[in-house]
Order: sequence, then structure tokens, then C-alpha cells
Amino acid sequence: MSGPTPALPITGTTRLYAVLGHPIAQVQAPTLMNPVFASLRIDAVVVPVHARPENLEHVVRGLQRTDNLDGMFITVPHKVAVPRLADRCGPTVDIVGSANVLRREADGSWLAENFDGSGFVAGLVGAGHDPGGRRAALVGAGGAGSAIAAALLTAGVDRLGVYDWDPAKLGALVARLDARWPGRVAALDGPRLSGVGLAVNATPLGMHPGDPLPFPLDSLPKDCVVADIVMKPRETRLLRLAAARGHRIHHGIHMLEGQLNSYRAFFDLH
Amino acid sequence: MSGPTPALPITGTTRLYAVLGHPIAQVQAPTLMNPVFASLRIDAVVVPVHARPENLEHVVRGLQRTDNLDGMFITVPHKVAVPRLADRCGPTVDIVGSANVLRREADGSWLAENFDGSGFVAGLVGAGHDPGGRRAALVGAGGAGSAIAAALLTAGVDRLGVYDWDPAKLGALVARLDARWPGRVAALDGPRLSGVGLAVNATPLGMHPGDPLPFPLDSLPKDCVVADIVMKPRETRLLRLAAARGHRIHHGIHMLEGQLNSYRAFFDLH
Repeated sequence: MSGPTPALPITGTTRLYAVLGHPIAQVQAPTLMNPVFASLRIDAVVVPVHARPENLEHVVRGLQRTDNLDGMFITVPHKVAVPRLADRCGPTVDIVGSANVLRREADGSWLAENFDGSGFVAGLVGAGHDPGGRRAALVGAGGAGSAIAAALLTAGVDRLGVYDWDPAKLGALVARLDARWPGRVAALDGPRLSGVGLAVNATPLGMHPGDPLPFPLDSLPKDCVVADIVMKPRETRLLRLAAARGHRIHHGIHMLEGQLNSYRAFFDLH
Repeated sequence: MSGPTPALPITGTTRLYAVLGHPIAQVQAPTLMNPVFASLRIDAVVVPVHARPENLEHVVRGLQRTDNLDGMFITVPHKVAVPRLADRCGPTVDIVGSANVLRREADGSWLAENFDGSGFVAGLVGAGHDPGGRRAALVGAGGAGSAIAAALLTAGVDRLGVYDWDPAKLGALVARLDARWPGRVAALDGPRLSGVGLAVNATPLGMHPGDPLPFPLDSLPKDCVVADIVMKPRETRLLRLAAARGHRIHHGIHMLEGQLNSYRAFFDLH
């Protein structure tokens, strides 16, 4: 059996992609995308770029002026801030108010798009948890949460409850979603999720060992799927406790894996 | 026999170094430095960053604000422009007026230094062409030429002639060198080099197939070493013609190879 195709060596002709986050050690884009480049014999590499929020604009402006850089992957906490640094936004960005990818266009301008939601749903479907027709609830109305909410409604969830600790953020998201999918979205008044077949953590809670649970598990029906978007650690405390209670669980990495095909099309990698 | 140590995979913990140039395809720093990182098992990578002159400040400012980026290698045409983007300059930068490396200091500030000259001389010595006590001539008073001139004088060349097509640039360099090494430097009034044991092309002429020769060869003594700083192509037209005339030749790549030990010390790689 042969192993994966080795990466091409980095030289002066190598094209760059950056993944921007804060913190940075947990980002998965290099590990997922660089083998794709290698298998396609594309002379390109994804590198981690640690940008603090106060430095985001300077870092993005510098990368946009780097002629051999073709794209950026955007992760926590920059997804909501980054659309205003693009020249144009794709349709999903306008709905969810956040972006997770930027592409240099042929004319040198920059387009923002968001594949978090479609990637999350593709991952759910691939794992046998098609959300169509279910009731679902989601905690976290930030960049990833907004994108997942829109994608779950697009995928046909029957009803979606959303909770966030910030009432203004929660109200704004629910209003945007309700304008497009009337009568199917409700703001929850606390993180107690009940009567749902799918419960999603779309907050960063779980990245650090001492984090509280994003929502309690004791109100969930036995057959509820518990899904996390946190990728590192792979087994968050939420998922460990949910598995111990007999729930089917869905790991954060599936969201990124589900986006690979979207990325290949968006960046024209073939 | 085992091959070179394979590079560590790029992940979210990988530290970054950038090499900035315009054009970019010819840069050698990734090819030279990444095997050093691999052999030392250092989780770091040098990537090419294509910065046009009008974008240099934005690109450098963005990289300086990238927390996981520890250093920059600077090549043509940015070596003269980059010192003013540093917080402090090493002693060689002050003498030659250009820098080829930037390092993030422990306090977050940026230090500029220039190893082009010392690298060039180390390469010469390593190839058996110790310049001490010789007469030498150099064409090109830009960033690399200035650094090489200072290093040749430091290494003990007896007399140094310098020529550049820009009289102001030439006069300024000769004045700076003469202030430090009085009576050993002269501005030449044309690119005809005669009576020297070492003739150096420190211009970019030779990178493109149609480039004119930086200096004619017919005035050189038979035993004169002809050295180039152009690295790509390895065999420039100057070096091909010089070899055909029986001169010993010295390739551009030696300047970068000669800098490896300096870089390892400067960036504390061990």
C-alpha cells in the first residue's frame, strides 16, 4: 500500500493560502488542504497566520497585496469582522453576516464567501444525520452559528431554536433568519434545549479544559444527536458526556471535511 | 545512504518565515532554509511572499503583526527600502544602507540586519578565493553591492573600485565607504574593470536572457576571478563568457550558502 502523495517542495514559485485565527495552534486547514494540493500536484500550500483581532485589518490588507497569495481561510474570532475587508460578498455572507473564506478574483479584487453552514450540513448528511424534517436547536449566534443556522433552514429543518448569551446578537440573527424563512425560527430564552432531534454547539466553548458546557444535556431527548463545531480537542467535554448518556455524537472536524469539495470548487483546484 | 530529513508537516503550530521579493519565482531561501529546519526538527517554514515595491510597506506591516511569523528574508528590489520599516538596525545596515533580514525581538520590535556581504565573502573564502590583499572591482551600488563592498573592505581588500550607472547612488556609497575605510575606495567612471584580481557583478543583470553584460570582460587580467550575485540562472551569460575566456568563476548561490551559518545564529536556530 502506498501512503499519501508527498507534498511538493516549497520554492519561489509556490502559491500561498493563509488560514487566519486567534489562537492559531488548533487550525485544521493546513492538515486538510495540503494533502489535497499534494494529490493534485498543485504547487501551493496553506500556512497558519496568527492574527489578533486588533491586527486583523493590517494582516488581511498585507496578504491581499501579496501577489502570490490566492486565498484565505478565516476562523475564530474573525468570521464576522472579515466581510468588510472584502470587495464583494457571496449570497451566504449577506444572509449570515460572516465569512470563512476570501478569494482573489481575476481582476485582483477579493470575494468573501461562507461554507461553514453548507460544510456542517454536508458533514451531518455524510454521517447519516440528515437534518431535513427534524426539529433542531443551536447555541451560539456568532459567525459559525449564523452560517449553520441558515444552512439547517436551507436543508429543511422543521423548526430551529437559537440561543446566545448576547441578547442583541441573538435578536439580530433571528430577525434576519425569520425574514427569509418566516415562522420556522425562534429565539430561546436560555440554553435549555428540549424536544429536538439535533442539538448543536456553535460556540468556542470546549476548546479549553475548564470551559463550562455550552448547554446542559439533561433536557435532551434520548434520540437527540449532539453535534459540536469545536475541532480541538476532538472529544470535547460536551461530546464525552453526551456519549456517556447514550446520545449519538457528531464531531467538529466533520464540518471542515464537509467543506473540502466546496473549497476545491471555490478555488478552482483540479 | 539516507536522503535528507523530510520536512515536518505544516500545522497550526508551524512558525513562519517569509522571503520578500519582486519578482519572486527565483528566490532560493525556501530551498536552502527549509532543509535546515527539517534537519533540526524545527516546526517552521520559509514561504515566498511576492511584494511589489508599491505594496512593500503594507505587506511588511501585515507580516510584522502576524504573531507566528519570526523573521523575513529580503531580496531584490526591497533591500534599500526595508530598513525604515524596522524599529532598529544592526551595525552593517547603518554602513551599507540596506538590509536583507528582519527579526522579531523578544519585546515584539523588529531588528534589521544585512548578511549579504559577509555571506558573499564567506562563499568566496570557502571556494578558495580569499579576497584579502587583492585589488577588487564591483559593479552595482544597490543593496547587495553596498553590503558586498563593505564586507570586501572588512575582509582586507587592498583597493576597491565601484561603478554604478546612477552617479548619485555611486557617489553616496563611495562617500560612506571612504568615511569608514579612508583611501581604499574609488568611484570608477565606467564599467571597464582593469588591474583587478576579483571582479564582481552586484547588479540584477543576467537574470533575463536578453540582459546586457554588467561589465565587459576584455579588460580583465587573465587571473581575475569573475563573481556573480545572480542566482537564477546559475550560469549567467557573464559567467559563461568568463569561463570561456579562462577565468575562474564564482556562482551567485555561494553568497546565500555563505549566509546559512549567519542566519542560524541570527534566528537562534539550533
